[in-house]
Amino acid sequence: MKAAIIGATGYGGAELIRILHTHPHVSIHSVHATTMIGESLTKNYSHMRSFIDKEIEAVDIEKIRKEVDVVFTATPSGVAANMAEEFLSAGVKVIDLSGDFRIKNPDIYKEWYKIEPAKSGLVNQAVYGLTEWIEEDLTDVNLISNPGCFPTSALLGLAPVVKSGLVDTNSIIIDAKTGVSGAGKGLSQATHYSETNDNFKAYKINQHQHTPEIEEKIKGWNNKSKFVTFTPHLAPMTRGIMSTMYMTATEKVTEDQLIELYNEMYKDDYFVRIRKKGEYPTTKDVSGSNFCDISITYDERTNRITVISVIDNLVKGASGQAVQNMNKLFGFEEKAGIDFMPLFP
Amino acid sequence: MKAAIIGATGYGGAELIRILHTHPHVSIHSVHATTMIGESLTKNYSHMRSFIDKEIEAVDIEKIRKEVDVVFTATPSGVAANMAEEFLSAGVKVIDLSGDFRIKNPDIYKEWYKIEPAKSGLVNQAVYGLTEWIEEDLTDVNLISNPGCFPTSALLGLAPVVKSGLVDTNSIIIDAKTGVSGAGKGLSQATHYSETNDNFKAYKINQHQHTPEIEEKIKGWNNKSKFVTFTPHLAPMTRGIMSTMYMTATEKVTEDQLIELYNEMYKDDYFVRIRKKGEYPTTKDVSGSNFCDISITYDERTNRITVISVIDNLVKGASGQAVQNMNKLFGFEEKAGIDFMPLFP
Amino acid sequence: MKAAIIGATGYGGAELIRILHTHPHVSIHSVHATTMIGESLTKNYSHMRSFIDKEIEAVDIEKIRKEVDVVFTATPSGVAANMAEEFLSAGVKVIDLSGDFRIKNPDIYKEWYKIEPAKSGLVNQAVYGLTEWIEEDLTDVNLISNPGCFPTSALLGLAPVVKSGLVDTNSIIIDAKTGVSGAGKGLSQATHYSETNDNFKAYKINQHQHTPEIEEKIKGWNNKSKFVTFTPHLAPMTRGIMSTMYMTATEKVTEDQLIELYNEMYKDDYFVRIRKKGEYPTTKDVSGSNFCDISITYDERTNRITVISVIDNLVKGASGQAVQNMNKLFGFEEKAGIDFMPLFP
Amino acid sequence: MKAAIIGATGYGGAELIRILHTHPHVSIHSVHATTMIGESLTKNYSHMRSFIDKEIEAVDIEKIRKEVDVVFTATPSGVAANMAEEFLSAGVKVIDLSGDFRIKNPDIYKEWYKIEPAKSGLVNQAVYGLTEWIEEDLTDVNLISNPGCFPTSALLGLAPVVKSGLVDTNSIIIDAKTGVSGAGKGLSQATHYSETNDNFKAYKINQHQHTPEIEEKIKGWNNKSKFVTFTPHLAPMTRGIMSTMYMTATEKVTEDQLIELYNEMYKDDYFVRIRKKGEYPTTKDVSGSNFCDISITYDERTNRITVISVIDNLVKGASGQAVQNMNKLFGFEEKAGIDFMPLFP
Repeated sequence: MKAAIIGATGYGGAELIRILHTHPHVSIHSVHATTMIGESLTKNYSHMRSFIDKEIEAVDIEKIRKEVDVVFTATPSGVAANMAEEFLSAGVKVIDLSGDFRIKNPDIYKEWYKIEPAKSGLVNQAVYGLTEWIEEDLTDVNLISNPGCFPTSALLGLAPVVKSGLVDTNSIIIDAKTGVSGAGKGLSQATHYSETNDNFKAYKINQHQHTPEIEEKIKGWNNKSKFVTFTPHLAPMTRGIMSTMYMTATEKVTEDQLIELYNEMYKDDYFVRIRKKGEYPTTKDVSGSNFCDISITYDERTNRITVISVIDNLVKGASGQAVQNMNKLFGFEEKAGIDFMPLFP
Repeated sequence: MKAAIIGATGYGGAELIRILHTHPHVSIHSVHATTMIGESLTKNYSHMRSFIDKEIEAVDIEKIRKEVDVVFTATPSGVAANMAEEFLSAGVKVIDLSGDFRIKNPDIYKEWYKIEPAKSGLVNQAVYGLTEWIEEDLTDVNLISNPGCFPTSALLGLAPVVKSGLVDTNSIIIDAKTGVSGAGKGLSQATHYSETNDNFKAYKINQHQHTPEIEEKIKGWNNKSKFVTFTPHLAPMTRGIMSTMYMTATEKVTEDQLIELYNEMYKDDYFVRIRKKGEYPTTKDVSGSNFCDISITYDERTNRITVISVIDNLVKGASGQAVQNMNKLFGFEEKAGIDFMPLFP
Repeated sequence: MKAAIIGATGYGGAELIRILHTHPHVSIHSVHATTMIGESLTKNYSHMRSFIDKEIEAVDIEKIRKEVDVVFTATPSGVAANMAEEFLSAGVKVIDLSGDFRIKNPDIYKEWYKIEPAKSGLVNQAVYGLTEWIEEDLTDVNLISNPGCFPTSALLGLAPVVKSGLVDTNSIIIDAKTGVSGAGKGLSQATHYSETNDNFKAYKINQHQHTPEIEEKIKGWNNKSKFVTFTPHLAPMTRGIMSTMYMTATEKVTEDQLIELYNEMYKDDYFVRIRKKGEYPTTKDVSGSNFCDISITYDERTNRITVISVIDNLVKGASGQAVQNMNKLFGFEEKAGIDFMPLFP
Repeated sequence: MKAAIIGATGYGGAELIRILHTHPHVSIHSVHATTMIGESLTKNYSHMRSFIDKEIEAVDIEKIRKEVDVVFTATPSGVAANMAEEFLSAGVKVIDLSGDFRIKNPDIYKEWYKIEPAKSGLVNQAVYGLTEWIEEDLTDVNLISNPGCFPTSALLGLAPVVKSGLVDTNSIIIDAKTGVSGAGKGLSQATHYSETNDNFKAYKINQHQHTPEIEEKIKGWNNKSKFVTFTPHLAPMTRGIMSTMYMTATEKVTEDQLIELYNEMYKDDYFVRIRKKGEYPTTKDVSGSNFCDISITYDERTNRITVISVIDNLVKGASGQAVQNMNKLFGFEEKAGIDFMPLFP
């Protein structure tokens, strides 16, 4: 099987290359971008030397769609929306790592993304690829909308209690901390080393476009849900997301019951690891891997549940999950090519 | 005026020395500890060379109380509780940086600190030194209980809305992130570089002893308050605390009104800086200084207020505020000796 | 084939586990240590969950030597010296990651390590495992002395010019910078986060025990060599070593010739990557991998050659190279189990 | 006395503001730049709030030279060369933090800087402001060329042995490591957080423009000197430079003699602190301060001296030394306004 990667020069693209180059069932056919065309991948990413020496190609949809079975689009907002149809019509499956197909409601998309949404036909045929919670039959599915990094971390941590009706969904507060690689390879004052190192920042309070993505999924699981509060922070580290999530219980529960619930709900999910009582995951526990580690705490005094969920933003939060979705889509083993032990320390 | 520092080898003690050595009205008379006795301060802290070459002395209360006007205790739990009385009875004022006198209710102290509380007579005469909100007349006050680093950050950010009754105090959630210096100079796996660098951790969820300290103060301001949720996290940086705080508004407000309220309430407080609408402070904005920078955000969708409050944990969160309290206690100008511009970048 | 790891709780041991658990020809039979006996590996290292759940066992040589084909000793100085013989006599091959067998001259060992050397019979039968430069026939070899992290980085960068006689070996100066994981999992003030972060330190100037290890090998390559200068530094990062090496050319050379020489000498060595003219490797270029990246620069003005050599101290500088040596010893493909693409960013 | 700062938006300019705003004898009259004109300083640098609220002005030389006594130029190469004369002719003293007047030989300037040198009349009247080693009578001096950050660190560490003739100057190798703030506020891939954090890089090997600056000064001290080797590295930290310097002794010396020599030579220099035998400075020991800490080591085996010299690149390596020079030029106390204790941890 052959794959093309569009947006190969960004961190998401680079991580796709790292993962796919050892995948047992797929080979990287070509890599594409809008910059550095004609140059070698390793000019941009020295670490890839000895592994892959492909030339970066322009995006020639006509050509690509004749040559590959699956396309990964790791592109800025609005790009995949414009090219997906041509791949799909040629029988090429598309896994999109951008936000173009994540929001089903076009008005909400427009409100948060400030650009026109993708065609509704496309949006509707896209399956939201939070792999552990895909409920659709994938037989005839050709377009996967890979979740955002924050929503992946948040939703995996929230699903069991939200689906069980154990929490007041409108009480949910998600305080998220991300490593700086989440901001991508592009330069900005916010990611300039001297002003980022040894510094902690909040950003886009009440305005981050991952908010409606989280809300839409939670509403799908529990129709009483109206909103969540979501606040992203930039932590002085390269990789990793921690979501610390607060919510009020709707009935009497114990910490033991909650942990059991999570273990039960995720018992068939290799990439979700539930922590024992009193243990909390750290972002390094999953660094470089596709795991999501989760801890659950309940406080009788306040009747609040605190869930901690950590992922590597570039793996389970982006390229790892994209490959996990590809595995599901093509009927490969879920772990194929993504079963890395985290790198620690 | 002469000061003695007890616990001079820890980071709080070292920061007191950095601050007091340039104070216009106080001189450091002696420095004390239970380790490194007889050695020079600069053996432990090379950066102090050329500034101070005092020998570290044992804690001889009899001797100290004859020689100084004020004692700073930057000591582990339970130590100041046992020595304060002897200083006070000799007319020496005491500023305690530990938690020994912070909690008025002895049962609550015992429950969270897991040791016996200080004598109630002492606890009751101690004034809680959140400087901006000291309401007591300090004329006859001799014992100041300097707030914890997290409570300083949280309470300065909460006071205006809590005192105004604008928020449901039981909805308050404090998600706090601290630099590693908050864990002190003592060694531990949790502060071992290789496992802390590029890593993000939560700890003591629902169990941190700063929780009741915050709650007691909030109850004092608003008697409907029963509890808060407080979660500390360790961020990979040396200095700084950010508290991100969430709460539900009890009446219709706007962001502009809230910002105006904060500006008004802190208009005479040099060390609190309120940010303009749309700006959020970062921890580096106050690094090395005694400032607390605060931003306020309101979300109509959720009816929630988000307050961000940042301090340098070793300055406003410990030694800087201790000196600010000393200034108030002795009638010096509030800024005396602590008016440092933050170090950036 | 079965392997035992002695010293499994340190970073070297943990990295051996990460590498060996996916090795196609070897399985981890048992893990041993002197602490945490009876506990699960994952209690110490959460990142290993779902991969390995072995119990940490005491070191019972009698038992181990009956059960395994190869033993890795990732132990403190002096430990492997005392246990190697019993493994060897039972036909178990030993790969030692400590310094016990690295120095052939017992007086020099004693002078630098300050303890008694291993028995000379053992030292003499040990082959120094700088894999790319092993010249011995390995047919009957049973004991590999895995090089130190600094010597690996330095010697790979020096070998071509030293062996060619192109440099005055007594002019060699090695300025090395290591990530903090090189100091291990044990706690110390030198690796305490608050004093290590954002800080740069030199240590053991003229006194580091890797000096004679480098010198002995260089003398073996060029008998005019008497000494090198080696200075280690601690950089505020977790993984990685950069050795910047200075030396005077003995004859007229050009940068192009030097680069060609390196390319030629390493043309069959997968894990050594020579950079193009004008490009220098960074430590992240090899992070998490077994690669050693090298750049060569020549300055006509000074007639000096500057070689930069980077490795991941825990992989090529320790456990990766140990497995590479095991592969050679047992006739497996050199890359087996260690062909990881570096993790970037 | 009134000062203007040209280039106020860069890190050097910002640090000048931090230092000058508390200077007892000078006030900041105006701040100038080519960007952000008309905006408040605190829009760019939030940490300055409550201290200074000047508006950033364009560079109107006519106006500035009528209003101030001294001008600091913290500008890119070539800018000060073009404006200095107009200030000088109006009797305004100029302290230039760029490289425009550092190199006396115009051919060498052109070779390394790749642009035309300043007028030789200007270059010749400029005094090189390595404050501890200014030998000129400053009575009629109006133009100070403030040294580069690397040369400051290197030359302070080399001066005693070079001037004493104790070392072969052509054997000098300077391996320097700088924090990322040395690269300034401008954005670049090399200072992008995700690719800089946890990474170590060398750059401009044999090509850095600070090389001839160091060489020229050393030749002035010892006319046998022909060249030095200088290699800069970027370390993952914000502030600080460590220069590790290697050189061969020309006669028999001992470590004790060398340390005594340094103590003697710097006995009147408050800002140079010589370490005791066996102690080495770290960059954090001087962070935020104007100190240069130096250690000296001698190795009998190799007959090499190793000198370690650390500074804060933005203080002693730029703005602090500029103010130290201003103090000398105007006859103020050398320490005035720059006597900060380092910030540790």
